[in-house]
Amino acid sequence: MASSAAAVVAEADGEEVTNRQVILKRYVTGCPTVDDMEVVAGAVRLAVQPGSAAVLVKNLYLSCDPFMRTRMTRHSEPGFVPDYVPGKVLDTCNVSKVVLSGHPDFKPGDLLWGVTGWEEYSLIPNPVFCHRINHHEFPLSYYTGVLGVPGLTAYAGLFEVGKARKGEYVFVSAAAGAVGQIVGQLAKLTGCYVVGSAGSDHKVNLLKTKFGVDDAFNYKKELDLNAALKRCFPHGIDVYFENVGGAMLDAVLRNMRPRGRIAVCGQVSQYNLERPDGVDLFQLVGKHIRMEGFLVSEYAGEYYRRFEEEMARYLKEGKVVYVEEVAEGIEAAPAALVGLFAGRNVGKQVVAVARE
Amino acid sequence: MASSAAAVVAEADGEEVTNRQVILKRYVTGCPTVDDMEVVAGAVRLAVQPGSAAVLVKNLYLSCDPFMRTRMTRHSEPGFVPDYVPGKVLDTCNVSKVVLSGHPDFKPGDLLWGVTGWEEYSLIPNPVFCHRINHHEFPLSYYTGVLGVPGLTAYAGLFEVGKARKGEYVFVSAAAGAVGQIVGQLAKLTGCYVVGSAGSDHKVNLLKTKFGVDDAFNYKKELDLNAALKRCFPHGIDVYFENVGGAMLDAVLRNMRPRGRIAVCGQVSQYNLERPDGVDLFQLVGKHIRMEGFLVSEYAGEYYRRFEEEMARYLKEGKVVYVEEVAEGIEAAPAALVGLFAGRNVGKQVVAVARE
Repeated sequence: MASSAAAVVAEADGEEVTNRQVILKRYVTGCPTVDDMEVVAGAVRLAVQPGSAAVLVKNLYLSCDPFMRTRMTRHSEPGFVPDYVPGKVLDTCNVSKVVLSGHPDFKPGDLLWGVTGWEEYSLIPNPVFCHRINHHEFPLSYYTGVLGVPGLTAYAGLFEVGKARKGEYVFVSAAAGAVGQIVGQLAKLTGCYVVGSAGSDHKVNLLKTKFGVDDAFNYKKELDLNAALKRCFPHGIDVYFENVGGAMLDAVLRNMRPRGRIAVCGQVSQYNLERPDGVDLFQLVGKHIRMEGFLVSEYAGEYYRRFEEEMARYLKEGKVVYVEEVAEGIEAAPAALVGLFAGRNVGKQVVAVARE
Repeated sequence: MASSAAAVVAEADGEEVTNRQVILKRYVTGCPTVDDMEVVAGAVRLAVQPGSAAVLVKNLYLSCDPFMRTRMTRHSEPGFVPDYVPGKVLDTCNVSKVVLSGHPDFKPGDLLWGVTGWEEYSLIPNPVFCHRINHHEFPLSYYTGVLGVPGLTAYAGLFEVGKARKGEYVFVSAAAGAVGQIVGQLAKLTGCYVVGSAGSDHKVNLLKTKFGVDDAFNYKKELDLNAALKRCFPHGIDVYFENVGGAMLDAVLRNMRPRGRIAVCGQVSQYNLERPDGVDLFQLVGKHIRMEGFLVSEYAGEYYRRFEEEMARYLKEGKVVYVEEVAEGIEAAPAALVGLFAGRNVGKQVVAVARE
């Protein structure tokens, strides 16, 4: 392996090309705007240091994730992923193609998904968070979504944390989003009664017709979220897949069934607030509710590979459908990210930097 | 059994005696005051209906519990215990002595603990929530505390919900209270590193000297709860036994270790608020924290009996000590209850209605 890898390492003095990058311009307060970011023209040498295990990739699809917002504020303490730094490029779990490799596991032309920058080319000194794409029969962008982090998040959150079982009542918020759309369909496949909430009538319609959930509502049109949940769940909720937080979580807590489980994936309604909304957590006591966060990184490795095969089978058999919205070109990336917080995207928001 | 029970049933036209009762005068907003309650002189006939399974008891010790506050507000939806009703007597889990019984399991003179009214005599139509007191070698009032609901709450919360294990870092708030004092001692017996918080220097001193925790702090003297927890737990917290909510919970969430557990027993800082304080629940995600409520009623029956024997052994061996504060006479009950919210009590707050 080592000798064949050595053969594909470019010299250290390769060609220098333009590398457009999306950088954070300043720490963000409140709702992020496109002016908080900037697309700058950097340069990259198409080379990896001889003897290094670095990989140089060309980015194809960038993933827009709501929790990126939490990394745009400076925190006094380190979180589970580092804060973004003004002047530096953003990063997420993206799809890329290997241009040059000093790493024995990767060779030029390999398609990868994993952590790279929001830029045209990324030099990855140690590609431990990069994985080979195994299923080429689907659009590559699916590895920023249903076959990547959002899909794995939906799967692990619903089954490992939420412990959803056949016949149970499952509620998912942001149900037409990258993760939510998968949660609803997996819960239906498990034999659950599934209701989703979303922020537009179009999304609600999509939930009912395309994603096949049992019921859905537009939370922006409900004057009383508690009443909406009572209408949809007269017997209460067993599993809540939490994507939004705040008032919705508060209403959900009032409608949980005894021994209900809340898998906390995200809280998009809270990321732009200076102080979090108050939620009546004493509700956890009276019905012995379990509320549990989780990180998708815990389910990497063998767990992911089993998930990948199962999900690929569902996609092939048409048991899971997947909706994404693709913005064209790296210049469109800041607006695509900002759009998440206005709920502009339907399904997963992706940015196509290059098509291969 | 049935025939001997029948022999002790008084006639239906027994003597009528005064029965002083603590009633809720009005629904409470904000912090409860003694004026929200009233001690009234009712009357009770010392009799049980022939053929009924009712029990008439004389109350000896009344239990003052912080969560009684949550029952003093009218809720639009039923909770896990009914709201109190203006004009009606309060109730909690108290210690009483059987005066008359139509029930085959109880006879006059039996000492019980279980749900009765805040009154001198209670007629219990169906004593399903009453249990015989098995250990007479301790003060009877202990069955409102260390051998009753608070003790069982501490035990089940720490071990069944919090899953505390030897060598782990355990934090308990309201650590000198009815439940907290037991939590800290049980955690120490398990081989945990234990820190407690309380609201006075006297209580902090008690925690360190009498209850034997490793460290303690007065939360009212800490300008920054986050910093206080960092000082006490440089390696973070594995298990948090949650009694207070609000700002303390928010600070704890920042200091939990990966896979930490929060056993939610109560949230005394929140009961008097119109809207709950905001807490950064997104912290649950990054460290896969589990937050779980529980009800002591789940651990009744055989579980309780095992607990009772274990705790009685600890008390006899001096491995657990117990502190209570006894207010004298039913007239003192409203002030004793209100005092909980000002932190006036040290240890369990009890009201002695009669001594037997």
